Amino acid sequence: MISAWALDGIPEISPGADLVQLIGDALANDENGCLDGDILVVTSKILSKAEGRIVEASDREDAITAETVRVVATRAYEGGVTRIVENRLGIVGAAAGVDASNTAEGTVLLLPVDPDASARALAAALRERFGVRLGIIVSDTLGRAWRIGQTDIAIGAAGVLVVDDLRGQADQQGRPLAVTVPVVADELAGLGDLVKGKASGRPVAVVRGMGRLVTDEVDVPGARTLPRTGPTDMFRLGTDEAYRLGVAGEPLP
Amino acid sequence: MISAWALDGIPEISPGADLVQLIGDALANDENGCLDGDILVVTSKILSKAEGRIVEASDREDAITAETVRVVATRAYEGGVTRIVENRLGIVGAAAGVDASNTAEGTVLLLPVDPDASARALAAALRERFGVRLGIIVSDTLGRAWRIGQTDIAIGAAGVLVVDDLRGQADQQGRPLAVTVPVVADELAGLGDLVKGKASGRPVAVVRGMGRLVTDEVDVPGARTLPRTGPTDMFRLGTDEAYRLGVAGEPLP
Repeated sequence: MISAWALDGIPEISPGADLVQLIGDALANDENGCLDGDILVVTSKILSKAEGRIVEASDREDAITAETVRVVATRAYEGGVTRIVENRLGIVGAAAGVDASNTAEGTVLLLPVDPDASARALAAALRERFGVRLGIIVSDTLGRAWRIGQTDIAIGAAGVLVVDDLRGQADQQGRPLAVTVPVVADELAGLGDLVKGKASGRPVAVVRGMGRLVTDEVDVPGARTLPRTGPTDMFRLGTDEAYRLGVAGEPLP
Repeated sequence: MISAWALDGIPEISPGADLVQLIGDALANDENGCLDGDILVVTSKILSKAEGRIVEASDREDAITAETVRVVATRAYEGGVTRIVENRLGIVGAAAGVDASNTAEGTVLLLPVDPDASARALAAALRERFGVRLGIIVSDTLGRAWRIGQTDIAIGAAGVLVVDDLRGQADQQGRPLAVTVPVVADELAGLGDLVKGKASGRPVAVVRGMGRLVTDEVDVPGARTLPRTGPTDMFRLGTDEAYRLGVAGEPLP
Protein backbone atom coordinates (compact mmCIF):
# COMPACT_ATOMS: atom_id res chain seq x y z
CA MET A 1 0.00 0.00 0.00
CA ILE A 2 1.30 3.41 -1.03
CA SER A 3 -0.19 6.60 0.28
CA ALA A 4 0.66 10.16 -0.67
CA TRP A 5 -0.48 13.60 0.33
CA ALA A 6 0.63 17.22 0.08
CA LEU A 7 1.96 19.12 3.09
CA ASP A 8 0.09 22.19 4.23
CA GLY A 9 1.65 25.27 5.73
CA ILE A 10 4.64 25.94 3.51
CA PRO A 11 4.57 29.68 2.78
CA GLU A 12 5.53 31.46 -0.43
CA ILE A 13 9.31 31.07 -0.66
CA SER A 14 11.65 34.06 -0.94
CA PRO A 15 15.36 34.13 -1.75
CA GLY A 16 17.34 32.94 1.23
CA ALA A 17 14.42 31.07 2.81
CA ASP A 18 15.45 28.22 5.10
CA LEU A 19 13.75 25.28 3.37
CA VAL A 20 15.03 22.75 5.88
CA GLN A 21 13.24 24.67 8.62
CA LEU A 22 10.07 25.37 6.62
CA ILE A 23 9.62 21.85 5.23
CA GLY A 24 10.61 20.36 8.57
CA ASP A 25 8.01 22.45 10.41
CA ALA A 26 5.32 21.49 7.88
CA LEU A 27 6.25 17.86 8.38
CA ALA A 28 6.26 18.21 12.16
CA ASN A 29 2.77 19.75 12.06
CA ASP A 30 1.36 17.13 9.68
CA GLU A 31 -1.16 14.84 11.32
CA ASN A 32 0.36 11.83 9.55
CA GLY A 33 3.71 12.38 11.19
CA CYS A 34 6.98 11.34 9.65
CA LEU A 35 8.00 7.69 9.43
CA ASP A 36 11.15 5.83 8.46
CA GLY A 37 11.08 5.25 4.69
CA ASP A 38 8.91 8.25 3.80
CA ILE A 39 9.86 10.03 0.58
CA LEU A 40 9.33 13.77 0.09
CA VAL A 41 8.67 15.02 -3.43
CA VAL A 42 9.74 18.67 -3.51
CA THR A 43 8.80 20.97 -6.39
CA SER A 44 12.03 22.36 -7.86
CA LYS A 45 10.42 25.79 -7.98
CA ILE A 46 10.78 26.32 -4.24
CA LEU A 47 14.47 25.40 -4.38
CA SER A 48 14.91 27.87 -7.23
CA LYS A 49 13.16 30.61 -5.26
CA ALA A 50 15.15 29.92 -2.09
CA GLU A 51 18.35 30.03 -4.16
CA GLY A 52 17.30 33.34 -5.70
CA ARG A 53 17.33 31.88 -9.22
CA ILE A 54 15.01 34.65 -10.40
CA VAL A 55 15.63 36.84 -13.45
CA GLU A 56 13.67 39.58 -15.18
CA ALA A 57 11.23 38.23 -17.73
CA SER A 58 12.74 40.55 -20.33
CA ASP A 59 15.94 38.52 -19.95
CA ARG A 60 14.12 35.23 -20.51
CA GLU A 61 15.72 34.41 -23.87
CA ASP A 62 19.18 35.25 -22.55
CA ALA A 63 18.48 33.12 -19.48
CA ILE A 64 17.55 30.15 -21.64
CA THR A 65 20.74 30.62 -23.64
CA ALA A 66 22.80 30.72 -20.46
CA GLU A 67 21.22 27.51 -19.17
CA THR A 68 21.69 25.71 -22.49
CA VAL A 69 24.51 23.29 -23.18
CA ARG A 70 23.27 22.32 -26.64
CA VAL A 71 20.32 23.20 -28.86
CA VAL A 72 18.50 20.04 -29.92
CA ALA A 73 15.65 21.47 -31.97
CA THR A 74 13.83 24.74 -32.59
CA ARG A 75 10.38 25.51 -33.86
CA ALA A 76 9.00 28.93 -34.72
CA TYR A 77 5.50 29.80 -33.52
CA GLU A 78 3.56 33.04 -33.65
CA GLY A 79 5.33 35.25 -31.17
CA GLY A 80 8.61 33.43 -30.78
CA VAL A 81 10.71 30.31 -31.12
CA THR A 82 10.45 27.20 -28.98
CA ARG A 83 13.88 25.82 -28.21
CA ILE A 84 14.29 22.21 -27.16
CA VAL A 85 17.69 22.12 -25.50
CA GLU A 86 19.95 20.04 -23.33
CA ASN A 87 20.46 22.07 -20.18
CA ARG A 88 23.24 22.16 -17.61
CA LEU A 89 21.70 19.21 -15.81
CA GLY A 90 21.64 17.02 -18.93
CA ILE A 91 17.88 17.28 -19.19
CA VAL A 92 16.44 17.71 -22.67
CA GLY A 93 13.33 19.87 -22.69
CA ALA A 94 11.72 23.10 -23.74
CA ALA A 95 13.26 26.41 -22.66
CA ALA A 96 15.94 24.77 -20.45
CA GLY A 97 13.44 24.66 -17.60
CA VAL A 98 13.10 28.45 -17.49
CA ASP A 99 9.57 28.93 -16.22
CA ALA A 100 7.14 31.80 -15.77
CA SER A 101 4.32 30.10 -13.85
CA ASN A 102 3.99 30.64 -10.11
CA THR A 103 6.65 33.36 -10.19
CA ALA A 104 6.41 37.03 -9.31
CA GLU A 105 5.04 39.22 -12.10
CA GLY A 106 7.72 40.19 -14.61
CA THR A 107 10.13 37.49 -13.55
CA VAL A 108 11.03 33.98 -14.62
CA LEU A 109 12.65 31.22 -12.63
CA LEU A 110 15.72 29.16 -13.52
CA LEU A 111 16.16 25.58 -12.35
CA PRO A 112 18.10 25.07 -9.11
CA VAL A 113 21.88 25.14 -9.52
CA ASP A 114 22.41 21.52 -8.43
CA PRO A 115 19.16 19.72 -7.54
CA ASP A 116 20.93 16.53 -6.42
CA ALA A 117 23.07 18.56 -4.00
CA SER A 118 19.98 20.41 -2.76
CA ALA A 119 18.25 17.05 -2.25
CA ARG A 120 21.22 15.71 -0.31
CA ALA A 121 21.28 18.76 1.96
CA LEU A 122 17.53 18.49 2.63
CA ALA A 123 17.69 14.74 3.21
CA ALA A 124 20.62 14.98 5.62
CA ALA A 125 19.11 17.80 7.66
CA LEU A 126 15.59 16.34 7.83
CA ARG A 127 16.94 12.87 8.72
CA GLU A 128 18.87 14.55 11.53
CA ARG A 129 15.83 16.43 12.79
CA PHE A 130 13.37 13.52 12.70
CA GLY A 131 15.72 10.62 13.37
CA VAL A 132 14.37 8.52 10.49
CA ARG A 133 15.53 7.66 6.98
CA LEU A 134 13.79 10.03 4.54
CA GLY A 135 14.26 10.11 0.78
CA ILE A 136 14.05 13.32 -1.26
CA ILE A 137 12.96 13.68 -4.88
CA VAL A 138 13.16 17.12 -6.53
CA SER A 139 10.54 17.30 -9.29
CA ASP A 140 10.03 19.41 -12.36
CA THR A 141 7.38 19.47 -15.08
CA LEU A 142 8.57 18.34 -18.50
CA GLY A 143 7.18 17.64 -21.96
CA ARG A 144 7.98 14.43 -23.78
CA ALA A 145 8.75 13.51 -27.38
CA TRP A 146 5.80 11.88 -29.15
CA ARG A 147 3.25 12.60 -26.42
CA ILE A 148 1.15 15.64 -25.66
CA GLY A 149 1.33 17.57 -22.42
CA GLN A 150 3.68 17.13 -19.52
CA THR A 151 4.39 14.91 -16.55
CA ASP A 152 6.55 15.58 -13.53
CA ILE A 153 9.96 13.91 -13.51
CA ALA A 154 12.86 13.75 -11.07
CA ILE A 155 15.63 16.31 -11.54
CA GLY A 156 17.17 15.76 -8.11
CA ALA A 157 17.28 12.90 -5.64
CA ALA A 158 18.98 11.83 -2.41
CA GLY A 159 18.55 8.97 0.01
CA VAL A 160 16.40 7.05 -2.45
CA LEU A 161 17.05 4.73 -5.41
CA VAL A 162 16.25 6.50 -8.66
CA VAL A 163 15.90 3.24 -10.60
CA ASP A 164 14.49 -0.06 -9.41
CA ASP A 165 17.06 -2.21 -11.11
CA LEU A 166 15.40 -5.51 -11.98
CA ARG A 167 18.37 -6.93 -13.80
CA GLY A 168 19.06 -10.19 -12.03
CA GLN A 169 15.42 -10.65 -11.02
CA ALA A 170 13.20 -13.10 -12.83
CA ASP A 171 9.77 -12.69 -14.36
CA GLN A 172 6.84 -14.96 -13.53
CA GLN A 173 8.24 -17.56 -15.94
CA GLY A 174 11.62 -17.48 -14.26
CA ARG A 175 13.38 -15.66 -17.08
CA PRO A 176 15.62 -12.72 -16.25
CA LEU A 177 13.98 -9.29 -16.56
CA ALA A 178 17.03 -8.19 -18.46
CA VAL A 179 15.98 -5.05 -20.22
CA THR A 180 13.60 -3.43 -17.78
CA VAL A 181 14.90 -0.57 -15.62
CA PRO A 182 11.89 1.15 -14.06
CA VAL A 183 12.77 4.76 -13.32
CA VAL A 184 10.94 4.90 -10.02
CA ALA A 185 12.17 8.42 -9.30
CA ASP A 186 10.16 9.70 -12.28
CA GLU A 187 7.10 7.70 -11.23
CA LEU A 188 7.40 9.11 -7.69
CA ALA A 189 7.66 12.63 -9.12
CA GLY A 190 4.49 11.97 -11.12
CA LEU A 191 2.72 10.76 -8.00
CA GLY A 192 3.83 13.95 -6.27
CA ASP A 193 2.25 15.97 -9.07
CA LEU A 194 -1.05 14.09 -8.71
CA VAL A 195 -1.34 15.08 -5.05
CA LYS A 196 0.23 18.53 -5.18
CA GLY A 197 -1.50 19.87 -8.28
CA LYS A 198 -0.17 22.89 -10.13
CA ALA A 199 -2.10 25.72 -8.56
CA SER A 200 -2.52 24.55 -5.00
CA GLY A 201 0.35 26.33 -3.30
CA ARG A 202 1.43 23.02 -1.80
CA PRO A 203 4.92 22.36 -3.15
CA VAL A 204 5.86 19.27 -1.12
CA ALA A 205 4.27 15.81 -1.15
CA VAL A 206 4.91 12.92 1.20
CA VAL A 207 4.92 9.38 -0.21
CA ARG A 208 4.59 6.57 2.32
CA GLY A 209 4.97 2.87 1.60
CA MET A 210 7.95 2.84 -0.77
CA GLY A 211 10.52 2.50 2.01
CA ARG A 212 12.19 -0.35 0.14
CA LEU A 213 13.62 2.32 -2.18
CA VAL A 214 14.98 4.48 0.65
CA THR A 215 18.70 4.03 1.30
CA ASP A 216 20.74 4.11 4.49
CA GLU A 217 23.08 6.66 2.94
CA VAL A 218 21.92 10.04 1.65
CA ASP A 219 24.64 10.22 -1.00
CA VAL A 220 23.59 7.65 -3.61
CA PRO A 221 23.40 8.10 -7.41
CA GLY A 222 20.98 10.96 -8.00
CA ALA A 223 18.80 12.25 -10.80
CA ARG A 224 21.91 13.38 -12.70
CA THR A 225 22.29 9.73 -13.74
CA LEU A 226 18.90 9.68 -15.53
CA PRO A 227 19.37 11.79 -18.68
CA ARG A 228 20.66 9.91 -21.73
CA THR A 229 22.48 12.14 -24.17
CA GLY A 230 25.37 11.82 -26.58
CA PRO A 231 25.93 9.39 -29.43
CA THR A 232 23.79 6.59 -27.95
CA ASP A 233 20.77 8.93 -28.07
CA MET A 234 18.92 8.28 -31.32
CA PHE A 235 17.21 11.67 -31.00
CA ARG A 236 20.22 13.82 -30.09
CA LEU A 237 19.25 16.32 -32.81
CA GLY A 238 15.79 17.26 -34.09
CA THR A 239 14.54 15.81 -37.37
CA ASP A 240 14.59 19.10 -39.30
CA GLU A 241 17.98 20.12 -37.88
CA ALA A 242 19.62 16.79 -38.76
CA TYR A 243 18.09 16.85 -42.24
CA ARG A 244 19.39 20.35 -42.91
CA LEU A 245 22.92 19.36 -41.90
CA GLY A 246 22.70 16.46 -44.34
CA VAL A 247 21.50 18.69 -47.16
CA ALA A 248 24.30 21.15 -46.43
CA GLY A 249 26.88 18.37 -46.43
CA GLU A 250 27.96 19.24 -42.92
CA PRO A 251 28.82 16.58 -40.36
CA LEU A 252 26.48 15.55 -37.57
CA PRO A 253 27.78 16.74 -34.21
CA MET B 1 -4.72 11.83 0.14
CA ILE B 2 -4.09 9.23 -2.55
CA SER B 3 -3.68 5.58 -1.73
CA ALA B 4 -2.85 2.74 -4.08
CA TRP B 5 -2.36 -1.00 -3.79
CA ALA B 6 -2.21 -4.07 -6.01
CA LEU B 7 -5.05 -6.58 -6.10
CA ASP B 8 -4.30 -10.14 -5.05
CA GLY B 9 -5.90 -13.22 -6.50
CA ILE B 10 -5.81 -12.60 -10.26
CA PRO B 11 -4.58 -15.85 -11.82
CA GLU B 12 -2.31 -16.28 -14.84
CA ILE B 13 -4.45 -15.19 -17.80
CA SER B 14 -5.13 -17.49 -20.77
CA PRO B 15 -6.69 -16.65 -24.14
CA GLY B 16 -10.42 -16.17 -23.73
CA ALA B 17 -10.23 -15.47 -20.00
CA ASP B 18 -13.11 -13.38 -18.64
CA LEU B 19 -11.24 -10.39 -17.25
CA VAL B 20 -14.40 -8.65 -16.10
CA GLN B 21 -15.16 -11.63 -13.90
CA LEU B 22 -11.59 -12.18 -12.69
CA ILE B 23 -10.83 -8.53 -11.89
CA GLY B 24 -14.31 -8.08 -10.42
CA ASP B 25 -13.84 -11.07 -8.12
CA ALA B 26 -10.41 -9.82 -7.02
CA LEU B 27 -11.97 -6.44 -6.30
CA ALA B 28 -14.89 -8.01 -4.42
CA ASN B 29 -12.46 -10.01 -2.25
CA ASP B 30 -10.20 -7.02 -1.52
CA GLU B 31 -10.38 -5.88 2.09
CA ASN B 32 -10.40 -2.23 0.96
CA GLY B 33 -13.61 -2.72 -0.98
CA CYS B 34 -14.51 -0.69 -4.02
CA LEU B 35 -15.55 2.95 -3.73
CA ASP B 36 -16.99 5.52 -6.09
CA GLY B 37 -14.09 7.30 -7.82
CA ASP B 38 -11.60 4.44 -7.59
CA ILE B 39 -9.32 4.03 -10.61
CA LEU B 40 -7.99 0.63 -11.69
CA VAL B 41 -4.62 0.52 -13.43
CA VAL B 42 -4.58 -2.65 -15.52
CA THR B 43 -1.37 -3.99 -17.07
CA SER B 44 -1.90 -4.26 -20.82
CA LYS B 45 -0.26 -7.68 -20.76
CA ILE B 46 -3.33 -9.34 -19.26
CA LEU B 47 -5.57 -7.81 -21.92
CA SER B 48 -3.18 -9.08 -24.59
CA LYS B 49 -3.22 -12.57 -23.10
CA ALA B 50 -7.01 -12.64 -22.77
CA GLU B 51 -7.26 -11.51 -26.39
CA GLY B 52 -4.88 -14.26 -27.48
CA ARG B 53 -2.37 -11.74 -28.85
CA ILE B 54 0.42 -14.33 -28.57
CA VAL B 55 2.81 -15.23 -31.37
CA GLU B 56 5.80 -17.54 -31.63
CA ALA B 57 9.03 -15.85 -30.61
CA SER B 58 10.55 -16.91 -33.94
CA ASP B 59 7.99 -14.61 -35.58
CA ARG B 60 8.95 -11.67 -33.34
CA GLU B 61 10.51 -9.54 -36.07
CA ASP B 62 7.54 -10.16 -38.39
CA ALA B 63 5.19 -9.31 -35.53
CA ILE B 64 6.97 -6.00 -34.94
CA THR B 65 6.70 -5.22 -38.65
CA ALA B 66 2.99 -6.01 -38.65
CA GLU B 67 2.37 -3.73 -35.65
CA THR B 68 4.41 -0.89 -37.17
CA VAL B 69 2.87 2.07 -38.96
CA ARG B 70 6.15 3.89 -39.47
CA VAL B 71 9.80 3.30 -38.58
CA VAL B 72 11.19 6.28 -36.67
CA ALA B 73 14.75 5.14 -35.98
CA THR B 74 16.86 2.00 -35.94
CA ARG B 75 20.05 1.13 -34.17
CA ALA B 76 22.12 -2.02 -34.66
CA TYR B 77 23.40 -3.81 -31.57
CA GLU B 78 25.22 -7.11 -31.19
CA GLY B 79 22.57 -9.68 -32.00
CA GLY B 80 20.00 -7.56 -33.77
CA VAL B 81 18.51 -4.21 -34.57
CA THR B 82 16.45 -2.05 -32.23
CA ARG B 83 13.57 -0.46 -34.07
CA ILE B 84 11.88 2.63 -32.65
CA VAL B 85 8.54 2.75 -34.42
CA GLU B 86 5.15 4.34 -34.37
CA ASN B 87 2.70 1.51 -33.81
CA ARG B 88 -0.96 1.06 -34.69
CA LEU B 89 -1.95 2.95 -31.53
CA GLY B 90 0.17 5.99 -32.41
CA ILE B 91 2.65 5.18 -29.65
CA VAL B 92 6.32 5.71 -30.49
CA GLY B 93 8.54 3.17 -28.78
CA ALA B 94 10.87 0.23 -29.13
CA ALA B 95 9.67 -2.93 -30.88
CA ALA B 96 6.07 -1.68 -31.28
CA GLY B 97 5.28 -2.92 -27.78
CA VAL B 98 6.06 -6.54 -28.72
CA ASP B 99 7.24 -8.02 -25.44
CA ALA B 100 8.83 -11.23 -24.24
CA SER B 101 8.72 -10.78 -20.46
CA ASN B 102 6.05 -12.57 -18.42
CA THR B 103 5.00 -14.61 -21.47
CA ALA B 104 5.08 -18.37 -22.03
CA GLU B 105 8.47 -19.72 -23.15
CA GLY B 106 9.00 -19.33 -26.87
CA THR B 107 6.27 -16.74 -27.31
CA VAL B 108 5.96 -12.98 -27.42
CA LEU B 109 2.97 -10.80 -26.74
CA LEU B 110 1.50 -8.07 -28.93
CA LEU B 111 -0.30 -5.04 -27.48
CA PRO B 112 -4.09 -5.32 -27.14
CA VAL B 113 -6.00 -4.60 -30.34
CA ASP B 114 -7.79 -1.51 -28.98
CA PRO B 115 -6.86 -0.69 -25.37
CA ASP B 116 -9.33 2.20 -25.12
CA ALA B 117 -12.16 -0.11 -26.20
CA SER B 118 -10.99 -2.77 -23.73
CA ALA B 119 -10.91 -0.12 -21.01
CA ARG B 120 -14.45 1.00 -21.87
CA ALA B 121 -15.74 -2.57 -21.74
CA LEU B 122 -14.07 -3.19 -18.36
CA ALA B 123 -15.25 0.13 -16.94
CA ALA B 124 -18.85 -0.38 -18.05
CA ALA B 125 -19.08 -3.94 -16.73
CA LEU B 126 -17.37 -3.24 -13.40
CA ARG B 127 -19.46 -0.09 -12.82
CA GLU B 128 -22.52 -2.24 -13.44
CA ARG B 129 -21.37 -4.94 -11.01
CA PHE B 130 -20.34 -2.62 -8.16
CA GLY B 131 -22.76 0.25 -8.70
CA VAL B 132 -20.04 2.91 -8.45
CA ARG B 133 -18.12 5.08 -10.93
CA LEU B 134 -14.78 3.38 -11.62
CA GLY B 135 -12.09 4.62 -13.99
CA ILE B 136 -9.83 2.29 -15.96
CA ILE B 137 -6.27 2.97 -17.11
CA VAL B 138 -4.51 0.37 -19.27
CA SER B 139 -0.75 0.65 -18.73
CA ASP B 140 2.33 -0.39 -20.63
CA THR B 141 6.06 0.00 -20.00
CA LEU B 142 7.84 2.39 -22.35
CA GLY B 143 11.25 3.94 -22.84
CA ARG B 144 11.68 7.67 -23.35
CA ALA B 145 13.87 9.84 -25.54
CA TRP B 146 16.75 11.43 -23.61
CA ARG B 147 16.23 9.43 -20.41
CA ILE B 148 17.41 6.01 -19.38
CA GLY B 149 15.09 3.16 -18.48
CA GLN B 150 11.34 3.04 -18.64
CA THR B 151 8.20 4.21 -16.90
CA ASP B 152 4.66 2.96 -17.24
CA ILE B 153 2.33 5.08 -19.35
CA ALA B 154 -1.35 4.93 -20.30
CA ILE B 155 -2.19 3.18 -23.57
CA GLY B 156 -5.89 2.83 -22.80
CA ALA B 157 -8.39 4.68 -20.64
CA ALA B 158 -12.11 4.90 -19.92
CA GLY B 159 -14.24 6.69 -17.36
CA VAL B 160 -11.35 8.92 -16.35
CA LEU B 161 -9.81 12.15 -17.63
CA VAL B 162 -6.47 11.44 -19.31
CA VAL B 163 -5.30 15.05 -18.97
CA ASP B 164 -5.96 17.48 -16.15
CA ASP B 165 -6.52 20.46 -18.35
CA LEU B 166 -5.42 23.53 -16.41
CA ARG B 167 -6.01 25.98 -19.23
CA GLY B 168 -8.34 28.52 -17.77
CA GLN B 169 -7.07 27.98 -14.23
CA ALA B 170 -4.76 30.49 -12.60
CA ASP B 171 -1.45 30.05 -10.84
CA GLN B 172 -0.74 31.37 -7.34
CA GLN B 173 -0.13 34.83 -8.84
CA GLY B 174 -3.46 34.77 -10.66
CA ARG B 175 -1.99 34.34 -14.12
CA PRO B 176 -3.44 31.69 -16.42
CA LEU B 177 -1.62 28.33 -16.43
CA ALA B 178 -1.76 28.45 -20.18
CA VAL B 179 0.79 25.94 -21.32
CA THR B 180 0.56 23.22 -18.71
CA VAL B 181 -1.43 20.08 -19.55
CA PRO B 182 -0.55 17.45 -16.94
CA VAL B 183 -1.04 14.01 -18.43
CA VAL B 184 -2.51 12.48 -15.31
CA ALA B 185 -3.21 9.17 -17.07
CA ASP B 186 0.53 8.62 -17.47
CA GLU B 187 1.18 9.63 -13.86
CA LEU B 188 -1.53 7.20 -12.71
CA ALA B 189 0.04 4.45 -14.84
CA GLY B 190 3.38 5.17 -13.18
CA LEU B 191 1.79 4.96 -9.75
CA GLY B 192 0.30 1.62 -10.76
CA ASP B 193 3.79 0.40 -11.66
CA LEU B 194 5.15 1.48 -8.26
CA VAL B 195 2.62 -0.71 -6.43
CA LYS B 196 2.37 -3.61 -8.88
CA GLY B 197 6.06 -4.12 -9.60
CA LYS B 198 7.22 -6.08 -12.61
CA ALA B 199 7.64 -9.57 -11.20
CA SER B 200 4.88 -9.72 -8.63
CA GLY B 201 2.15 -11.45 -10.59
CA ARG B 202 -0.24 -8.69 -9.55
CA PRO B 203 -1.37 -7.03 -12.76
CA VAL B 204 -4.05 -4.67 -11.41
CA ALA B 205 -3.65 -1.73 -9.03
CA VAL B 206 -6.37 0.29 -7.35
CA VAL B 207 -5.87 4.04 -6.93
CA ARG B 208 -8.13 5.76 -4.41
CA GLY B 209 -8.41 9.50 -3.86
CA MET B 210 -8.36 10.81 -7.43
CA GLY B 211 -12.11 10.64 -7.89
CA ARG B 212 -12.13 14.20 -9.22
CA LEU B 213 -10.71 12.74 -12.46
CA VAL B 214 -13.37 10.03 -12.75
CA THR B 215 -16.18 10.88 -15.17
CA ASP B 216 -19.88 10.08 -15.13
CA GLU B 217 -19.63 8.63 -18.62
CA VAL B 218 -17.36 5.73 -19.51
CA ASP B 219 -16.86 6.89 -23.09
CA VAL B 220 -14.63 9.96 -22.79
CA PRO B 221 -11.46 10.76 -24.79
CA GLY B 222 -9.07 7.89 -24.16
CA ALA B 223 -5.34 7.25 -24.34
CA ARG B 224 -5.51 7.35 -28.14
CA THR B 225 -5.54 11.15 -27.77
CA LEU B 226 -2.13 11.21 -26.04
CA PRO B 227 0.42 10.38 -28.76
CA ARG B 228 1.72 13.33 -30.74
CA THR B 229 2.95 12.39 -34.18
CA GLY B 230 3.05 13.96 -37.61
CA PRO B 231 4.58 17.26 -38.75
CA THR B 232 4.22 19.01 -35.35
CA ASP B 233 6.48 16.36 -33.83
CA MET B 234 10.03 17.73 -33.88
CA PHE B 235 11.38 14.18 -33.47
CA ARG B 236 9.25 12.39 -36.06
CA LEU B 237 12.38 10.80 -37.56
CA GLY B 238 15.60 9.76 -35.81
CA THR B 239 18.67 11.98 -36.08
CA ASP B 240 20.72 9.58 -38.20
CA GLU B 241 17.77 8.74 -40.45
CA ALA B 242 16.92 12.39 -41.11
CA TYR B 243 20.57 13.23 -41.74
CA ARG B 244 20.93 10.41 -44.29
CA LEU B 245 17.86 11.62 -46.19
CA GLY B 246 19.40 15.07 -46.34
CA VAL B 247 22.72 13.74 -47.60
CA ALA B 248 20.91 11.69 -50.24
CA GLY B 249 18.90 14.71 -51.34
CA GLU B 250 15.63 12.94 -50.65
CA PRO B 251 12.65 14.70 -49.10
CA LEU B 252 11.69 14.32 -45.45
CA PRO B 253 8.48 12.32 -45.09
